[in-house]
Amino acid sequence: MRFIQIYDTTLRDGAQAEGISYSCEDKIKIAQYLDKMGFHYIEGGWPLSNPKDLEFFTSIRGYNFKNAKLAAFGSTRKAGTKAENDANINSILDTGAPVATIFGKSWDFHVTKALRITLEENLNMIRDTIAYLKRSGLEVIYDAEHFFDACKANPEYAMSTIEAAKAGGATTVVLCDTNGGSLPLEIKDMVELVVNRLDIPVGIHAHNDTDVAVANSVMAVQAGAVQVHGTVNGYGERCGNANLCSVIPNLTLKCGLETIPRENIGRLTEMSRFVSEVANINPYIHQPYVGHSAFAHKGGVHVSALLKDSRSYEHIAPELVGNRRRVLVSELSGISNMLYKYKELNVNIDGRSQEGKRILEEIKDMENRGFQFEGAEGSFELMLRKAYDGYVEPFILESLRLIVEVKQDGGAYSEAIIKMRVGEEVVHTAAEGNGPVNALDNALRKALESFFPCIRSMRLTDYKVRVIDESDGTGAIVRVHIETGDGIRTWGTVGVSENIIEASWQALADSLAFGLLKGEQFAENNTGEITANQPADDKYGRLV
Amino acid sequence: MRFIQIYDTTLRDGAQAEGISYSCEDKIKIAQYLDKMGFHYIEGGWPLSNPKDLEFFTSIRGYNFKNAKLAAFGSTRKAGTKAENDANINSILDTGAPVATIFGKSWDFHVTKALRITLEENLNMIRDTIAYLKRSGLEVIYDAEHFFDACKANPEYAMSTIEAAKAGGATTVVLCDTNGGSLPLEIKDMVELVVNRLDIPVGIHAHNDTDVAVANSVMAVQAGAVQVHGTVNGYGERCGNANLCSVIPNLTLKCGLETIPRENIGRLTEMSRFVSEVANINPYIHQPYVGHSAFAHKGGVHVSALLKDSRSYEHIAPELVGNRRRVLVSELSGISNMLYKYKELNVNIDGRSQEGKRILEEIKDMENRGFQFEGAEGSFELMLRKAYDGYVEPFILESLRLIVEVKQDGGAYSEAIIKMRVGEEVVHTAAEGNGPVNALDNALRKALESFFPCIRSMRLTDYKVRVIDESDGTGAIVRVHIETGDGIRTWGTVGVSENIIEASWQALADSLAFGLLKGEQFAENNTGEITANQPADDKYGRLV
Repeated sequence: MRFIQIYDTTLRDGAQAEGISYSCEDKIKIAQYLDKMGFHYIEGGWPLSNPKDLEFFTSIRGYNFKNAKLAAFGSTRKAGTKAENDANINSILDTGAPVATIFGKSWDFHVTKALRITLEENLNMIRDTIAYLKRSGLEVIYDAEHFFDACKANPEYAMSTIEAAKAGGATTVVLCDTNGGSLPLEIKDMVELVVNRLDIPVGIHAHNDTDVAVANSVMAVQAGAVQVHGTVNGYGERCGNANLCSVIPNLTLKCGLETIPRENIGRLTEMSRFVSEVANINPYIHQPYVGHSAFAHKGGVHVSALLKDSRSYEHIAPELVGNRRRVLVSELSGISNMLYKYKELNVNIDGRSQEGKRILEEIKDMENRGFQFEGAEGSFELMLRKAYDGYVEPFILESLRLIVEVKQDGGAYSEAIIKMRVGEEVVHTAAEGNGPVNALDNALRKALESFFPCIRSMRLTDYKVRVIDESDGTGAIVRVHIETGDGIRTWGTVGVSENIIEASWQALADSLAFGLLKGEQFAENNTGEITANQPADDKYGRLV
Repeated sequence: MRFIQIYDTTLRDGAQAEGISYSCEDKIKIAQYLDKMGFHYIEGGWPLSNPKDLEFFTSIRGYNFKNAKLAAFGSTRKAGTKAENDANINSILDTGAPVATIFGKSWDFHVTKALRITLEENLNMIRDTIAYLKRSGLEVIYDAEHFFDACKANPEYAMSTIEAAKAGGATTVVLCDTNGGSLPLEIKDMVELVVNRLDIPVGIHAHNDTDVAVANSVMAVQAGAVQVHGTVNGYGERCGNANLCSVIPNLTLKCGLETIPRENIGRLTEMSRFVSEVANINPYIHQPYVGHSAFAHKGGVHVSALLKDSRSYEHIAPELVGNRRRVLVSELSGISNMLYKYKELNVNIDGRSQEGKRILEEIKDMENRGFQFEGAEGSFELMLRKAYDGYVEPFILESLRLIVEVKQDGGAYSEAIIKMRVGEEVVHTAAEGNGPVNALDNALRKALESFFPCIRSMRLTDYKVRVIDESDGTGAIVRVHIETGDGIRTWGTVGVSENIIEASWQALADSLAFGLLKGEQFAENNTGEITANQPADDKYGRLV
């Protein structure tokens, strides 16, 4: 079986994405994770360009990678100097990384217009730089920048730069579609040209500016490339790089090639979410294979067919990539979606009965008011159980007041005063917080902890606010979505109101109530361990 | 020049995306917009499956489409009945739409296992249904569901379903990769097979489950397809449909084919944002061609090269699709980014001076504290001008207090009390609001309107809250991002604090201050008209 190397540049090209700013610790966490996934190369950064990258290489030095080789990135030497005297090249050696990835110019236009040097000197720069690093004991990968544009403009010169890299001793020559402007058939032709003409392993480095980076990567492999560069979740400058969360399963599950170990394909979803958590980027829910919606079915016809045979509307079993099937409840839902949901929740309602249909109407009505149960399974199940399962709320709000003061010097004070009924008792208490929602959360927990000690293990892991429009003209409203975890599993809850405090209250109250409802089964399993999806720092508890 | 028809299903397949729920009015707005863009077909919905879709067809009846043909969607007739007696088919006729798009089974496995009918009866159902609609005066497009999977499993039967559609009188046969599991070379082979064997126009309908829907659509066209089905922004079930915002420029600008009128290619960015606004889905900033980051440059090397020649790191000129270049200021910024930014803002600072470098350090420091100037150009420019341009703030906060009461019955009351200095005067006032931020906004405007009447034309068009993590352990913080518009242009501002109210205050104050700073040039242009990017309903003003 053909073997394809996975070369990750989440830490270097990925850091160029708008909105991403890793700390050194973030980079270490990601590198260690990718190593465990069985990635073959991890590009740590460009030591000369960014002090944080240098810090990363220093900090990671003691870590013993099990699968991956660490690569340091840099450019060819400056014109008219020796590689030995080039600060850029020597900073690569200083990192102690066993692999150097060197980029150079393939496009005659760039050589003469941007670098303003001769075409011959550019070839020397490529060959010398690689040869020097090679002599210094490193494996050298050569990134041929703008290769495809270069090849369209002046194929002979573009080929001669590759030959220079080969002459210098590069292990692999990576053809880069740096501007991301090429389409699959072009990639196919040009990769085949290089593969057929030069006896050196070829890699592909694609960007997504025409929305085909994954297709270009797969096509390059089909044309003979043996190494794919990309990033987790496709992070990268402009429209991003080839998304390895799609490239890996496409190559493995669709093309039958060997990439990372088979057993780790089932951890791709977890990996995607781990990296988005560390990068502090909201996951893109529609992301192929690993997204929250990747196997979410909304249309009634689809769900009806799925109940008969999952192959009807799923190209692979979601479990193969560690994802799961979800059936959405919405105005497009038919009875099939509700039947599926009832079965999943083990709720004892006959979906085809009058009662079952009434719930569907109720859900549609709540959705019209701005609720969204997609992703808020906690609130959905509570709503169902309240209506039809004799469920009694564990606590009831009597009143809630919030006071916030912002001072001229920028200081702020938040206080929540809360009065609640728990069973027969009335609790009336108050708490401060960093912000109003934190004060509210503190007061709520303070009021409830003595009754329900297990809420101490529940952590709020995400808090989102969405301003939504209502079409009926009664005024726009706010939806608050909260994710809560107890170290074993997470659940989502939702609140909707014109008032952000009230919406937050609803979502908070549901999050604890749902945790209590599931309390027994959680208590059995709860080892106190934090999983990858639940960062140790309580992002929410300390704030808002 | 070859001509490719664009068939939009944003209103039907797009509505199956998680998180999308159009009102009838939303659908009308989108249909009218797409017609003006020159789309050739607009699929309005599936009248039998959803009352809202039926309402749409009734409401749109009076509208005179200039370019597009409206299509109603439905399945082939039920087994063992006549098309004439089928409620599904007749509901299509009732819509009055000139085009019917009928989907049917291509895969023998679905015919025998899901429908539980004979292979022959399925062929009859396809032919009869199309023939009946055709006799009733409609153009009929045939969607061959699961065609590629079917063709892998039983190519002869799959072909016979297409032949049945042709025999029935279909204008176009659309090959659907319903599960989205196929890769470009497979699409190429199978489209070529159909095109070579049958003399009927072929279309492609791709889903994005393997992250290659756009590539598959382009490949199908290269293999002979003449019609592409997709959705604006790629909205659709699971991972979405082929994204027409990428397909159209790929076909037009990259492949040199004719799709929608050339002059409308420059409105693709506006279209993408209009539809995301109506659909109430946050735009995906990294979206190719039309995303906010699609031409955003962060790496210092890129910006340095761009200053010399934009072709260095841009595959097309952003203006071709109505987008624009952005240079981001971040910790990866070199001097080049700052030089570019100063030039853009017309700020008189020598970027290479001590002062220029000090600003860069200051920016990096603020970003470490959680500020993000990417997308918050208003706050960025104010910060610069405060520090180096003798800019004086038009108003200064003295104190601010907020009180929120949530009652047991779900009612809530919000009040803001604000004391500010404007020039020599002190204003002390209070206002209510639907929520705390709205109360704050009302109080701020109440205090300022008599001094600066032009703030009445400024509308807050978006309000976002992001919970962010700080790596230095002093506690997580909240970032508030506000978009404001005056009908002509929009600007973003940002606030960061542990307290959401304080962060909202900062972003609000900046939004008005920046609007005032730009006041003169705005006043000249402001016609009071609302552009597509700024919905007439003030999403924010009435709420939060």
